[in-house]
Amino acid sequence: MPRYFVDENNIKNLIIDNDNFHHLAIVNRVKVGEEVELFSNDITYKVKITKINKDSLNFEIVDEYYFNTEFNFKVTLLQAYPKGDKLESIIKHSTELGVYEIIPTITSRTIVKIEDNKKDNKLKRLNQIAIEASKQSRRNYIPKILDIKRLNEINYDNYNVKILAYEVLSTEENNKKFVEVVNSIKENDNVIIAIGPEGGFSNDEANYLIDKGFIPVSLGKRILRTETAGLYCLSVIGALKEWE
Amino acid sequence: MPRYFVDENNIKNLIIDNDNFHHLAIVNRVKVGEEVELFSNDITYKVKITKINKDSLNFEIVDEYYFNTEFNFKVTLLQAYPKGDKLESIIKHSTELGVYEIIPTITSRTIVKIEDNKKDNKLKRLNQIAIEASKQSRRNYIPKILDIKRLNEINYDNYNVKILAYEVLSTEENNKKFVEVVNSIKENDNVIIAIGPEGGFSNDEANYLIDKGFIPVSLGKRILRTETAGLYCLSVIGALKEWE
Repeated sequence: MPRYFVDENNIKNLIIDNDNFHHLAIVNRVKVGEEVELFSNDITYKVKITKINKDSLNFEIVDEYYFNTEFNFKVTLLQAYPKGDKLESIIKHSTELGVYEIIPTITSRTIVKIEDNKKDNKLKRLNQIAIEASKQSRRNYIPKILDIKRLNEINYDNYNVKILAYEVLSTEENNKKFVEVVNSIKENDNVIIAIGPEGGFSNDEANYLIDKGFIPVSLGKRILRTETAGLYCLSVIGALKEWE
Repeated sequence: MPRYFVDENNIKNLIIDNDNFHHLAIVNRVKVGEEVELFSNDITYKVKITKINKDSLNFEIVDEYYFNTEFNFKVTLLQAYPKGDKLESIIKHSTELGVYEIIPTITSRTIVKIEDNKKDNKLKRLNQIAIEASKQSRRNYIPKILDIKRLNEINYDNYNVKILAYEVLSTEENNKKFVEVVNSIKENDNVIIAIGPEGGFSNDEANYLIDKGFIPVSLGKRILRTETAGLYCLSVIGALKEWE
């Protein structure tokens, strides 16, 4: 059954208009008596078309249910602070892909300098990007962009599944390990994925994270840029675990 | 064993210098007699360190083998031509993620107008982006950006696995179908993934593709933007099929 995103007012007034009218009446040629799904404010409404007007449709509500767009576990992205406007792009993409929160992290190879007096404004702007991306991808939840931290300022005890993307480990075994870890995620788990900066985590940093319980994995044969690695992980997690 | 990317000259002269010297000698504290892997021009060299100098290392080659960064099947992205500079971003990301070729496609909801006399230059530039992204992600193969086509100008007989990302089908069944289709990909298969424009494929277009043998699938519960959908598919294909 086709699903259409409508405004609250459409539901209140039992009317489909504008783009959705065009889509339903002209493109899909729905008829009186047909049922379609309308989606508004996390609720899916199953409705039956009762009347077709010149530029609108009337309907009655047959059924309604909550549509949850969230994983039943939480995925935190520990993202080494990248150069330029890449963090904005990471926030947009990973919000679409279901991330729970992002910790922008300073590493030994982080090039960007964020002055203390600019941090608050920066974080406000980054969180605004998450709000917009969340709205656009129709999520029930708005991911938080947390304070910028150093690797040793993060409390890793908060997480029970810890994944370290480590590019030097490009072997079949380490790729299998990634898929295995993803498959092992359970309801209510707190997952954290550590993504290094442009030059990768240093060996000391990788070892520090491994000491903290991170499982080093490979994300495939090709070198992924820092802004692609998290999206790869979230996509695979979504495809394999989304509906469980 | 850690792997380092070096220049041809390093291999020719049996010397590790610059950044790699720092990484091996200072960070990793390698010792004479230790073995590491060097990667240059698709060849992986297993080498043994023979001498540590002030700012370089000497080595001898123990073994060498070809490192194939490619899938053993081909994935074509039928990408509805997006607005702004999104196609550039799609080319960069999907090159990293192993795409074989991209067909920028005009659909009924494509907004961009590409004038005939600018097409050649445009394609040249897009292919240049693929070349650079391929180099950066150390691929053996440079993906081709094919001529801009309409949906009905593509020969779908060239492909034996056809996937249609269709956002209206956000159900468990259709998500499982996506993972199933990915798992069914075999060596030498020609896979094509159709990604709609910002407003999605029209119903007529979706039906046309389904008639041509495309399997409509869901890419999860959230609405993915056109520039994210292909990356999601390629990531999942990579994680599940890369090493087979």
